[in-house]
Parts: sequence; structure tokens; C-alpha cells
Amino acid sequence: MENDTIAAISTPVGEGGIAVIRVSGPEAVEVVDRVYKGKRSLTEVDTHTVHYGHILHPETKEVLDEVLVTVMRAPRTFTREDVVEVSCHGGVVPVQKVLKSLLTAGARLAEPGEFTKRAFLNGRIDLSQAEAVIDLIRSKTDRAARVAMDQARGRLSRLIRRLRQEILETLAHLAVNVDYPEYDAEELTGKMLLSRCRKIEGEIVRLLDTARQGKILRDGIATVIVGRPNVGKSSLLNALVQENKAIVTDIPGTTRDVIEEYVNVRGIPLRLVDTAGIRETEDVVERIGVERSRRALEQADLVLLMLNYAEPLTEDDRKLLEALRLHTAIVVVNKTDLEGRLDLEEVRRLIGDTPLVTLSLKEERGLDRLEEAIGELFFAGRVEGTDATYVSNVRHIHLLEQALGNVRDAIAGIEGNIPLDMVEIDLKNAWQHLGEIIGEAVAEDLIDQIFSQFCLGK
Amino acid sequence: MENDTIAAISTPVGEGGIAVIRVSGPEAVEVVDRVYKGKRSLTEVDTHTVHYGHILHPETKEVLDEVLVTVMRAPRTFTREDVVEVSCHGGVVPVQKVLKSLLTAGARLAEPGEFTKRAFLNGRIDLSQAEAVIDLIRSKTDRAARVAMDQARGRLSRLIRRLRQEILETLAHLAVNVDYPEYDAEELTGKMLLSRCRKIEGEIVRLLDTARQGKILRDGIATVIVGRPNVGKSSLLNALVQENKAIVTDIPGTTRDVIEEYVNVRGIPLRLVDTAGIRETEDVVERIGVERSRRALEQADLVLLMLNYAEPLTEDDRKLLEALRLHTAIVVVNKTDLEGRLDLEEVRRLIGDTPLVTLSLKEERGLDRLEEAIGELFFAGRVEGTDATYVSNVRHIHLLEQALGNVRDAIAGIEGNIPLDMVEIDLKNAWQHLGEIIGEAVAEDLIDQIFSQFCLGK
Repeated sequence: MENDTIAAISTPVGEGGIAVIRVSGPEAVEVVDRVYKGKRSLTEVDTHTVHYGHILHPETKEVLDEVLVTVMRAPRTFTREDVVEVSCHGGVVPVQKVLKSLLTAGARLAEPGEFTKRAFLNGRIDLSQAEAVIDLIRSKTDRAARVAMDQARGRLSRLIRRLRQEILETLAHLAVNVDYPEYDAEELTGKMLLSRCRKIEGEIVRLLDTARQGKILRDGIATVIVGRPNVGKSSLLNALVQENKAIVTDIPGTTRDVIEEYVNVRGIPLRLVDTAGIRETEDVVERIGVERSRRALEQADLVLLMLNYAEPLTEDDRKLLEALRLHTAIVVVNKTDLEGRLDLEEVRRLIGDTPLVTLSLKEERGLDRLEEAIGELFFAGRVEGTDATYVSNVRHIHLLEQALGNVRDAIAGIEGNIPLDMVEIDLKNAWQHLGEIIGEAVAEDLIDQIFSQFCLGK
Repeated sequence: MENDTIAAISTPVGEGGIAVIRVSGPEAVEVVDRVYKGKRSLTEVDTHTVHYGHILHPETKEVLDEVLVTVMRAPRTFTREDVVEVSCHGGVVPVQKVLKSLLTAGARLAEPGEFTKRAFLNGRIDLSQAEAVIDLIRSKTDRAARVAMDQARGRLSRLIRRLRQEILETLAHLAVNVDYPEYDAEELTGKMLLSRCRKIEGEIVRLLDTARQGKILRDGIATVIVGRPNVGKSSLLNALVQENKAIVTDIPGTTRDVIEEYVNVRGIPLRLVDTAGIRETEDVVERIGVERSRRALEQADLVLLMLNYAEPLTEDDRKLLEALRLHTAIVVVNKTDLEGRLDLEEVRRLIGDTPLVTLSLKEERGLDRLEEAIGELFFAGRVEGTDATYVSNVRHIHLLEQALGNVRDAIAGIEGNIPLDMVEIDLKNAWQHLGEIIGEAVAEDLIDQIFSQFCLGK
């Protein structure tokens, strides 16, 4: 277990009123105190108190920033170690200077996620709770935040722990039978085991049932808008963005290539892909070709294909409709304010079960119907009011699927009257897989990998 | 004076480990307490202490976030009012939910700069100190941060106060003479006044001498790279950015049009303008035409004109060299790794005093000479080690210039033996103008305008 003192800027980089540098570890108070000048030494103050002062350059003693320093002594802290938070004036340069000073004073720059990792390693939270913290930070809608918050507070953990407890009890019964077969009629044990395993199976299935929706809430629906030039793609984009506050995500380094925008459609985060391309010119399809549109389609969870109500179907329209067949899509017929020259019956014939929405972006009519169709498609109308425990993390889903496989193997084994010590192995595997969700008996490199996805300073 | 309770997110928007919501006003503690759930009510806790708990939805009581709440009671606070800081998990959505909850509980959303404005109105800092806070946040280099920090700690204020005190004493002497002319020989008064005014004049001039450099440190040098296609503009840009950590500034709303990058060249912030254009294609001049280059030139503090060492001067080169005459510029001759076909003598003849630097970006030679030339040009080599009080703010510079005019009018008046009550008016005006720098007798709308330039949550 690492035991040094780490520091990092914990607030997002940028111009703001406050920036916070977090320091954690056995030397946290001493490290900050070395470059802090206030009324009293930080080593003398009470825990969980705040102090005004200045951070100095370690050598020149020049004042780098005016700060508020919060001293929190273990164990009632985020990491369960001594934690000091230095609240500086915001901005990029001054905060960097303060951080540098703290590093010179004896702290090591924290790795991404290292504070949360310490909270996990020190037993304050389990792995699924730690993972929920990052989901909470990245959440794009209220509902996603709620799911993450539930998980951070241990809702999923409690469910997993209960399932593991049930498996453990089943294993105990089983062990008794394996060790002392004379105590029990094997048939009776089989029945009891079967009923217990079926119950566990049912609970895992119920949990996995929430996975698709949970994943969508967590990651958003990758949405692509396609269609011929001048059909209204950028108008649709702008209408969605205006109606629903958008969060623009610039991916550093590729800013000029990809801009994603998240819009919140009735609690569902739509991740609008390649909006930069759409914004740049209305003539995207023309410019980038149907080929690239098709590639964009492949990566999309949802395709919004736009048609022009005022024009008959063209060859390009047909190609796009054809390409659509393999995707979750909604056909959006725009410009219903103009005279209709599109054969809607033909379109309906071509698209089969794919939903079709007519609207006029110019007259601002019909956008609500599109949003309704999206909600229908992904939540079958059950968007609001669900109080389920969601699984949203791919790692968790994968482990639940493995555990489910184990339990089903156990059930098949019992039904096939195979020796019970074989069944025991299946159930132990299920118990093990569920344990990995909350971080029990997880390999160190996996833990490193999980926490490295965190942002710096968390 | 406003007296309600305000709240705002004080950390930059984005994904981060911590986000802080600041609440200030007479009801700050009560407002937060209404939606806070922890071990104890916040109304009962000691000042300057930190408390773990949760922020709840005001109606549904759903847990919105896990938080640390810092309670700081007036007057030892940023605003001199009661201040509560709520430290949430970072991210966009959860923080918005917590803010919304606080607004429902009785706070009003703060205007940009309103916290600092209250600190000013409540007398904790003066206006030039408040302005330095925003300069500190926006500073692009260590030196700029140092200048801003000096000003935030009242260095400029003290100097201005001393100048005003000197003017006030001079006015007192003057008043004695005006009211009781029989007390003093007018000539003697004139001499004394003259010497005092000359001293004040000298100090203002010294202060204004720092203005050009101060302004550059604060705002950066708007720098444009021009030149024919393939002369190496994007290579120069990349070399500058790589060598000196760049800060990219996306101006919201126009992201796709303008990208500015700041690079720190020996403590001087270069603001590289229109880098997006340069990055997009090497053939900028070709594409956008010499006309637009000329327009870009007009807005630049520094022009880097690039020539190709391996080719003779072209008509376009000559046009650009011609356009350069009116600008502060450096001619950069690139590709010295190739055989020389450029007539350097002719170039030197055409550019007169403009510095010329030869380099090879391909072989990574000569960039240090360019950086040196930039330092020479703007700081005459005196970049490091200066310990002057800098004036950097355009508003301050303007007021100092007005005060200087007043003092010079007074000097001319004394020398011209005009009645001393006319001189009195000039000196009173100088006193008044200097006062406006630190915010004394400043009109309310000006104050509003100054603070509206702040970021939200400061």
C-alpha cells in the first residue's frame, strides 16, 4: 500500500473563482505547513477547521497566493488519511505555482484517481462505489446523476452483498451434504438447492434487465443525424441543442476533428456525434459522401435519418434508408410546412417497424413528437418514476453475466444429478464474480486500470 | 447596498474531482442548512469549521450529493458577510442540482463578480485590489501572476494612497496661502508648490513607464505569423507551442472561428492569434489572401513575418514586407538548412531597423534567437529581476494619464503665475482621478461594469 503524501489540483482547469488543491497522506499537514504562512502553524490547529493565510515560494518566500486552508485529520476524511485542502484564487497559472510549491515541500503529484483509490484501499468505500464517483462526475442528466449517486451510496453494493450472502448460505448447505451425505436425503438437498439457485438466478436476471437502460443513462445514446443536403440537419441539431441545454465535450487534442454535444432529452442523454461536421456546412453528405455517413452509422446507437417532405425520394435517400435497416433509427420527415411531394406510404413500406416522425423545424412544430419517439425507443415509455437499482458499468454487466452463467451451470448440474461438488465449484465461481464487482479479490492491475480512468485530483 | 444571500458555482465548469458552490449573505448559513443533512445543524456549529453531510432535494428529500460544508461567519470572510462553501463531487450535472437546491432554499444566483464586489463594497479590499483578483485568475505567465498578486495585496493601492496624501498636503499649504495670503510670500509658496508638484509628476511618470510592460504581462502580446505558403508558419507555431507550454483559449460561441493560444516566451505571454487558420492548412495566405493578412496585421502587437531562405523574394513577400513597415515586427528567415537563394542584404535594406532572425525549424536551430529577439523588443532585455510596481490595467493607465495632465496643468499654472485657486482645481482633479483607481468616489455604473467582467462565482 502506498503511504506517501500526494497532491493534485482537484478542480477543473480553467478560469474560475476558486481552485482547490487536495493533499493527502501521513505528512499532509506538515507538507502544507512548510509553505503556508498564517496566524498559526497548521500543525497546531484543530481538525476540520479552516484557516486564512498565504502560500509562499519555498525558496524566495515570495507570496504566491492568498488561500484558505482546510485541515482534516484522519480518519474522518475522503481518503481516511490526513487531508489538507488549499483553496486558491482560480486561474491556471497561480494554481500551478501553488501546486509546484507544495510538491517542492514534499508532496508527490497524485495520479489520476489516486485519492479515490486510497479511499477504496483504506476501506472507506468499495470498488463499485468508487466507480460510481466517476460516473457521477461524468453524468449528463439528472437521472444519470441519480443512478450514480445511488450506486455511490452503496445501493448496488448492498444488493451484491446480499446475493453473495445467499450463495454463501447455499454453499454451506451444500457443504454439509457433501461432507455428511448420511445426514440428508440427496433428493431433498437437490430441491432446496434448486429453489435457492433459481431465486439467485432471478435476481441477477432482474439486475441485468436494467443494464441497457443503465448503460444509456451513463454513457448517453450515440446519435447521428444523416440526410441529404438542405434537408435540415443543422436546424434539427440546433433545435435539439436550444431546447435542451447542451454540454459540449471537446476531446483534447482532437478539438478540431470531433465535437460531441450532449443534449438532455427527457432525462435521456443524447450524445450527438460529429456535430462539428454538421455545423460547418449543411452539405455534409455531399461533401463527405454516403460512404462516410455509412461509417458514422456503424458507431451510432441511434440514427436520425432526415427526409424532405417537399421533395420526392431521391436515389441518395433510398441508399440511406437501405443502410438504416441494421440500426436503431427514427426517420424524421422535415418541412411539413411546405407542400407534400414525398410519398409517405412508400417510405413507411421501406422502413418497416422503424418509427417515423413528421415535423416542421421552421415552424417549430413536432420536436416534442421526436423526443417522445426517442423515449419510447429506449425506455418504452418507462422513463420516469422507476426506482430500480441500475447496473450501468460494462465491467459490472460483464461480471453479472459470468455469475449468471455460473448459476445456470449449477442449476443444470443439479437437474442433471451431477455430483454436488461440481455444483459447488459453479456456485463458488458465481460468488467470486459477484465479489469482483465490489472489489473483493480483484487483481491489482485491474484496480490500477480502473482508477487510471479517473480525472486528476479525484 | 445589496443585502440578500447569493450563491454561485465558484469552480470552473467541467469534469473535476471537486466543485465548490459559494454562498454569501446574512442568510447564508440558514439557506444551506435548509437542504443540508449532517450530524448537526449548520446553525449550531463554530465558525471556520468543516462538516460532512449530504445536500437534499428541497421537496423530494432525495440525496443529491455527498458534500463537505465550510461555515465561515462574518467578518473574517472573503465578502465580510457570512459565507458558506459547499464542496461537492465535481462534474456538471450534480453540481447544477446542488446549486438549484440552494436557490430553491432561498439564495439568489450571484452575478459575475458579485462576491468580489461585496468584498469591495464592504471595505475589505479596494477597487484596484479587486481588479487584480481577476488579473490573477487570467494571468498567463508566472510574472503576470506576480504582478497581479502584488496588486491584489495592495502594492499599487499603497502607492496611489501615498501620492494622494502628497497632493492633499500640497492642497493644504495652498489653502493656507489662498485663505491667508498675508501669512506667506506668494513667491515662496510658488517655489514650494512647484517642487512638490514636480515630485508628484515624476512619480506618476515612473508609474506610467511600467504601463506598456505591465499591459503586455497582463494581456499578452497579440502575435500574428504571416508569410507565403510552405514557408513554415505552422512549424513555427508548433515549435513555439511545444517548447513553451501552451494554454488554449476557446472563446465560447466562436470556437470554430478563433482559437488563441498563449505561449510563455521567457516570462512574456505571446497571444498567438488565428492559430486555427494556420493549423488548418499551410496555405493560409493563399487561401485567405494578402488582404486578410493585412487586416490581421492591423490588430497585432507583434508580427512574425516568415521568409524562405531557399527561395528568392517573391512579389507576395515584398507586399508583406511593405505592409510590415507600420508594425512592430520580426522577420524570421526559415530553412537555413537548405542552400541559400534569398538575398539577405536586400531583405535587410527593405526592413530597416526591424530585427531579423535566421533559423531552421527542421533542424530545430535558432528558436532561442527568436525568443531572445522578442524579449529584446518588448523588455529591452530587462525581463527578469525587475521589482517595480507595475500598472497593467487600461483603466488605471487612463486615470494616471489624466492625473498627470492635471499635475502638469498645475505646474504650468504656477510657472505662469496664474491665481492659486485655479491651481487648486487642477490638483483636486488629480487627487480625484487617482482616487478612482482605488475606487473612491467612483460612479456606481462604472463599478457594475468593472465587476461584470469577472467570471461567475468570483
